[in-house]
Amino acid sequence: MERAGGARGLAEAGLGGGGESGVPAAGAVAAVLPAGGCGERLGGPTPKQFCPVLGRPLISYTLQALQRVSWIKDIVVAVTSENMDMMAAIVQRYRHQRVTLVEAGTTRHRSIFNGLKALAGDHPHSRLPTPTVVIIHDAVRPFVEEDVLASVVAAARDHGAAGAIRPLVSTVITPSADGCLEQSLDRAKHRASEMPQAFLFDVIYRAYCQCSDHDMEFGTECLHLALKYCHTKAKLVDGSPDLWKVTYKRDLYAMESIIKDKISQQICVVADTEEDAECIAFLQGLLKKELEVQGTSVTLCPNGQDLQKIILGDCYNFVCINMKNSDFRPPRQLLAGLASAAPSPFYPVAVVSVYFLDSQNVSLSEKMKEVMEMKDFAKEVKKQNVFFYGVLIHFPQDNPQQLQEHVRQGASIVASLIKDRNAGLVGQLLIA
Amino acid sequence: MERAGGARGLAEAGLGGGGESGVPAAGAVAAVLPAGGCGERLGGPTPKQFCPVLGRPLISYTLQALQRVSWIKDIVVAVTSENMDMMAAIVQRYRHQRVTLVEAGTTRHRSIFNGLKALAGDHPHSRLPTPTVVIIHDAVRPFVEEDVLASVVAAARDHGAAGAIRPLVSTVITPSADGCLEQSLDRAKHRASEMPQAFLFDVIYRAYCQCSDHDMEFGTECLHLALKYCHTKAKLVDGSPDLWKVTYKRDLYAMESIIKDKISQQICVVADTEEDAECIAFLQGLLKKELEVQGTSVTLCPNGQDLQKIILGDCYNFVCINMKNSDFRPPRQLLAGLASAAPSPFYPVAVVSVYFLDSQNVSLSEKMKEVMEMKDFAKEVKKQNVFFYGVLIHFPQDNPQQLQEHVRQGASIVASLIKDRNAGLVGQLLIA
Repeated sequence: MERAGGARGLAEAGLGGGGESGVPAAGAVAAVLPAGGCGERLGGPTPKQFCPVLGRPLISYTLQALQRVSWIKDIVVAVTSENMDMMAAIVQRYRHQRVTLVEAGTTRHRSIFNGLKALAGDHPHSRLPTPTVVIIHDAVRPFVEEDVLASVVAAARDHGAAGAIRPLVSTVITPSADGCLEQSLDRAKHRASEMPQAFLFDVIYRAYCQCSDHDMEFGTECLHLALKYCHTKAKLVDGSPDLWKVTYKRDLYAMESIIKDKISQQICVVADTEEDAECIAFLQGLLKKELEVQGTSVTLCPNGQDLQKIILGDCYNFVCINMKNSDFRPPRQLLAGLASAAPSPFYPVAVVSVYFLDSQNVSLSEKMKEVMEMKDFAKEVKKQNVFFYGVLIHFPQDNPQQLQEHVRQGASIVASLIKDRNAGLVGQLLIA
Repeated sequence: MERAGGARGLAEAGLGGGGESGVPAAGAVAAVLPAGGCGERLGGPTPKQFCPVLGRPLISYTLQALQRVSWIKDIVVAVTSENMDMMAAIVQRYRHQRVTLVEAGTTRHRSIFNGLKALAGDHPHSRLPTPTVVIIHDAVRPFVEEDVLASVVAAARDHGAAGAIRPLVSTVITPSADGCLEQSLDRAKHRASEMPQAFLFDVIYRAYCQCSDHDMEFGTECLHLALKYCHTKAKLVDGSPDLWKVTYKRDLYAMESIIKDKISQQICVVADTEEDAECIAFLQGLLKKELEVQGTSVTLCPNGQDLQKIILGDCYNFVCINMKNSDFRPPRQLLAGLASAAPSPFYPVAVVSVYFLDSQNVSLSEKMKEVMEMKDFAKEVKKQNVFFYGVLIHFPQDNPQQLQEHVRQGASIVASLIKDRNAGLVGQLLIA
């Protein structure tokens, strides 16, 4: 067993934390994440929990969802020995906190049992305190929210066990031996058992200790073990559709689109001047509409500290408006500020630099050198997960009424770039 | 009842078709598609079967999948009266064949029954022949393949009823009255009942005629009705994961990505010269790799007839290589050819025009007029569902060894444009 990456400091600063002594504080909560599966339904060589989504492995999103919840004191991840190094690298790279890795078993139940053993102190090198309640979750359900985690934990304290459920999407049927319909179950009387689930540690650990080889080998349902071996009837908690399990390739596609949607919800508009406020406000309004964003803010010439605050506010999109500046080289000040603000490595940051120029008066041939520099620079900052794009809004001096139409086109292009976050188009100068 | 759009000619030219007399030929097959749902799980104002995917309503994809199968003689779609005009417009716009619209009922079963009545001749204005076998499918399962349709139809001929099934993704449980776990079902002994299903027309029509109000109101499973009222035990047929039902917004995202993947599988490279074959082959090889395409073909200066063949071969991607031509205006010949070939309105056609130029020798300022013309032109052809983009591969005459690197970048940009089919970026000139 190894403690992977991240310091424990943050975890222990949280409320009701366990101590170093191994004696759990009243009500401490830990989580076990079985991640030893091979993802055969996905059809690729990479197990689905390690498949990249916007460049980051799926399991990192699930860890992010769990570590966001400060009262989850420890997260034990069970991975196969062959994936152990990769998993440790993921924890380090994405600075995951409070994560301990243990070796997965040959089945899902065996992996979970290994995770529980590490929390029971039943492990030679274990330093983890035994929690009162343990959450069991899937590595491939990345959108779990704090409220459902809190609900299953509260229900587990009262009932000994609890699990999230969802209505059935399809009718469930029983086939006969010859492959014909024997019976169809009443959809209204049945539910799909999903994750997360939570248990009094004592209940689920006792259940696993008594568990038969047959259950270990072929079983899939933890709630069933608690019922069978400890006579604990789990409380069922209604979950949201977000709890869905990434199973097929189409689910990876869906996940990527959902995340792109989420991180496009906030944009920060940065302008190099306080003049032309009307034009800036017009562009901002268009962007707000195109992206259906929840929030936009305008900041003038931000410094590192301003950016730090913006990034902590979950903003991953910057639109730099250059009214004065006609230099296609990237706005280095913003990008240097971004680097010093050290955005979380979770999502790519999109930076779109917008120029208003009359192309009749500006020789693009002369500016070609700048455009090529912009491309080289974009390639550099892409390594820090910053996607840089340029948009030129054509502003013919002799025809100012065209400006509005061009700003509309420009807003549409900026919105497309932010929504799509296409890595192949970084460094491009697009023209409206 | 109204006959929507498209001629019947094609249908009746197919094998074993029913006649105008209303007497079905032996073994004729029809399909009923209930599409009266309001899609409340999707959370938007538009019922999910009408949600746009790459600009086209979801139900049109399902109709496309059914009409591709020549032995399905009639497709009866049940829609609510308020959506009747919209549905008729969809059938006309996308030239769907063999489709008849009937009014939906207040529940799924009532809608299906209305569809069956139209096929039974039990309708004042019905001219449809009664089929031997009827397929029932969902409007929101667009990826159904001919093989599974053939399997359920064959099984229905033998057993009276048949339906596609899939393994369960989640464990199914029974809750007790107080919301606790009563029982968890053995996943291995149960299956999810999916669509399509097929029935001897006589069996399912008799079942619906006898069906109780309670079944009509609360039931969801056609196989169950055949069993309950006609004692017909349906044969269960294993379906593929593609049969999945578009239920949530994430499923629409997944569907869009799957379709983008599918239509990026074939590209046609069109060159304006036979010289520089090596360079063209190099670019073609890179594209093949980037897009993981199944096929690429090279055509020189194609005419309308050539393009017709290419489009019928399901190719929706054209890369025009301009070795001789340094005019940024779009390759009008290709686009005129495309217009005359009249591609099916099902998917947007991506046309990427690639130029090899030394930007030192070409004044981009002078060419700005051409670039703006390219944008205007792209806007025009977008109305015909053609997405036009330009890529300039920078080719410094004094440094030919850089060419290879630039061609690589160019291929990556072309691949990004084809994969993403971003409507917001049409008419842009990107630089490699």
